[in-house]
Amino acid sequence: MQSKKVVDALIRIAGRDGVLVTPEDLAAYSYDGTFAEGTPAAVVLPRSTEQTAGIVKIAAEHRVPLIARGMGSGLAAGSIPVRAGGIVVSFTRMNRIVEIDAANSTVRVEAGVVTADLQAEVEKRGLFYPPDPSSIRHSTIGGNIACNAGGPRCLKYGVTGNYVLGLEVVLADGRILQTGGKPIKDVTGYNLTALFTSSEGTLGLITGALLRLVARPRWAKTALCEFDSLHDASRAVNAVLAEGIVPASLELMDRTAIGCIEEAMHLGLNTDVEASLILETDGADEQTVMREAEAAGRVCLESGARSVKVARTEEERAGLWRARRSISPSLARKAPNKLGEDITVPRGAIPEVVRELREISARHGLPIVIFGHAGDGNLHPNILFDKRKVGEWEKVQRMVGEVFAAALAAGGTLSGEHGVGVLKRPYFERALGPVSVEVQRRIKQALDPLNILNPGKMFEDKE
Amino acid sequence: MQSKKVVDALIRIAGRDGVLVTPEDLAAYSYDGTFAEGTPAAVVLPRSTEQTAGIVKIAAEHRVPLIARGMGSGLAAGSIPVRAGGIVVSFTRMNRIVEIDAANSTVRVEAGVVTADLQAEVEKRGLFYPPDPSSIRHSTIGGNIACNAGGPRCLKYGVTGNYVLGLEVVLADGRILQTGGKPIKDVTGYNLTALFTSSEGTLGLITGALLRLVARPRWAKTALCEFDSLHDASRAVNAVLAEGIVPASLELMDRTAIGCIEEAMHLGLNTDVEASLILETDGADEQTVMREAEAAGRVCLESGARSVKVARTEEERAGLWRARRSISPSLARKAPNKLGEDITVPRGAIPEVVRELREISARHGLPIVIFGHAGDGNLHPNILFDKRKVGEWEKVQRMVGEVFAAALAAGGTLSGEHGVGVLKRPYFERALGPVSVEVQRRIKQALDPLNILNPGKMFEDKE
Repeated sequence: MQSKKVVDALIRIAGRDGVLVTPEDLAAYSYDGTFAEGTPAAVVLPRSTEQTAGIVKIAAEHRVPLIARGMGSGLAAGSIPVRAGGIVVSFTRMNRIVEIDAANSTVRVEAGVVTADLQAEVEKRGLFYPPDPSSIRHSTIGGNIACNAGGPRCLKYGVTGNYVLGLEVVLADGRILQTGGKPIKDVTGYNLTALFTSSEGTLGLITGALLRLVARPRWAKTALCEFDSLHDASRAVNAVLAEGIVPASLELMDRTAIGCIEEAMHLGLNTDVEASLILETDGADEQTVMREAEAAGRVCLESGARSVKVARTEEERAGLWRARRSISPSLARKAPNKLGEDITVPRGAIPEVVRELREISARHGLPIVIFGHAGDGNLHPNILFDKRKVGEWEKVQRMVGEVFAAALAAGGTLSGEHGVGVLKRPYFERALGPVSVEVQRRIKQALDPLNILNPGKMFEDKE
Repeated sequence: MQSKKVVDALIRIAGRDGVLVTPEDLAAYSYDGTFAEGTPAAVVLPRSTEQTAGIVKIAAEHRVPLIARGMGSGLAAGSIPVRAGGIVVSFTRMNRIVEIDAANSTVRVEAGVVTADLQAEVEKRGLFYPPDPSSIRHSTIGGNIACNAGGPRCLKYGVTGNYVLGLEVVLADGRILQTGGKPIKDVTGYNLTALFTSSEGTLGLITGALLRLVARPRWAKTALCEFDSLHDASRAVNAVLAEGIVPASLELMDRTAIGCIEEAMHLGLNTDVEASLILETDGADEQTVMREAEAAGRVCLESGARSVKVARTEEERAGLWRARRSISPSLARKAPNKLGEDITVPRGAIPEVVRELREISARHGLPIVIFGHAGDGNLHPNILFDKRKVGEWEKVQRMVGEVFAAALAAGGTLSGEHGVGVLKRPYFERALGPVSVEVQRRIKQALDPLNILNPGKMFEDKE
């Protein structure tokens, strides 16, 4: 790469203040939410789709890797430059909410909008954007789409991809593709919107999106359901859904997770239970929401819950969600480091997979905390460790391999909402099989023949 | 094509009774639900994915077009052979329900299962497969997936694609691809499941599917809401959804449609209204379902409905749905022929598009009956005509062009649930733009380099 020439060309597109090259600046864009690191050759911050198209044309001309980046909260190292000379394209300056169309319940946004900002803005108008990854305050909608992010509410409402009606994408040759539109149903041609969603920046740079909204639920009821047996908690999840009740959320926390929360926050949780479910129903009508919560609670009791406590005040409700959200930070008190995984399994396989996770933990002598979106079969096993200890990182890597093997053996897969990125690349073919990988490579080759878009991610080995 | 050689090879794969070549047999596979026709060189009826793979290998070797076919109920001529020497692959012998997994709410099926059979089978176990195209009794799940079929219930439940967890696909070189799995969430790699869904047999032959099920709703309440103004009916649709009420169905019928039904069936419908909505709520809890129906009815009255009648008995309810389903057949009393379109528009644009449709009708002097899934913005304008009259077919073609132009001008598109096939091919690039078409061509080229899978459909001109 002729670095100076490329940087000059980028400056002509994005302006001097839109191109970062000092070592301090580059360092700030060399990591994400994982342990991975990689320093880009430059960072460019476009202000428009047209500027982004110009940037891609420069990259294509000079054969320079481009790595799309939102807020860098990714948990699979998908936005880390792994090839030399890579240019990070940061979308944080493209953070406009372009249009809220109340009549059609849609919102048009630029890729760099922070998801919580988008939610707040549409909620002011009585509308609702449901997907709620825990990174919601520090992740962008573009990143959410690139990874098809989930969250607790996705049980009832579906994941990010279920809300993407259309995309604006800069292709590998700098042309601009528009997919989809405001109609809810659309079967005109291949589903390119779904193909680019969850493509992790490897097929095109997502610069804008048209999202579907729903009416903001006016009521929510939240309950804590405590179980002496994790098996019963898991049975309860299936039993609730089999009753035709679809809670907004059905979150599982195991004993270790509950212990960590209680130790950190002193909320008065029973730490002798084996598992708890946080169950939330929501909707337009208070009575209906309450009836659903009560019915779900009854099913939990019938499935062996020791107790079901419905939050009676907004404060109690907030406390339960504070507990759920504090799991991840509270783990820091237990160990200097944690590695959070994101396996997803058939709902019915949760007890068997949890048993396997415990065996892996016991075998290697490192704690695995288990929590996640049980209604979706999406678990976040967090391995606690100390990276400074000799050999511990290698041990964690072996454990991760065993965690994935357990998920695959149960009919599950590597990721429910984080994506593949770099971290799950070694397991990709084992999860999907050689035919699927080859089909994906062909699609990649067809849309990015020069391999400049986030090379080295997903199915592709590092060079 | 060396016809004899190919037929002999097909017989070696599928047996003598699995290959049809007599003119009478071929004639039976030369049409679908449209006016299009095209005679295949042979029809082959595989009994397994492996046989299908063998068939594709023969076709690849001899460069013979393969046209996947379910029950031939398609409304876009997607399963009509348009290239000489084409072989129809009929999946009607692959009609097994392989596994119903109640614990995980999934069903695994072969492509040739009739969708109504699948629904009946899972409903026996308290489960529910929601998509309900009107062809449900005479269309297959494979065809439904290939076109991403919809139906009245898709407002609340989503379309076919929302229920496809995984696919078994024979690729253009005869290899077998498995996509997805039982986990509800899965972001491991590109969304190939969504790419093959709605690809109309042009990227691979779908031989099996893993589908997501939900709990069977125990209660349903149905109401007929009559309006003096179609504009008000359309406003009511938006107002109901804005209230946070999501009915299972919100079906629109215009005055002409209501007149046709009444003339054919004498149900006692008011024929002087300008539009009616059939509104249905459903769910697990009778009170909740009733409250929702009543709330939605109230919103309709507030939006200007002349009357709202909730069906009080199962018989009344069945009557309303019989009315809705009889629109299409009842049109036969009005004119010898009809051409049903399938445009989809932003919900808020329905009044404007209906006005345009009426102008098109007036301009050309042929009736256009309007009904459809108003909650989804998916309208089925049906042009009534007499094909025997000189010049009438050409006039209908011009009208169809104007219908599509009206949909596109309103931000809509060509198809909500029928697909593109042959019939909408001339409008494809106008709807999606040249960049999208080129991206789709590249994907097609990457996955079917010999162009043997349903050539001449979607974006491709007839040779």
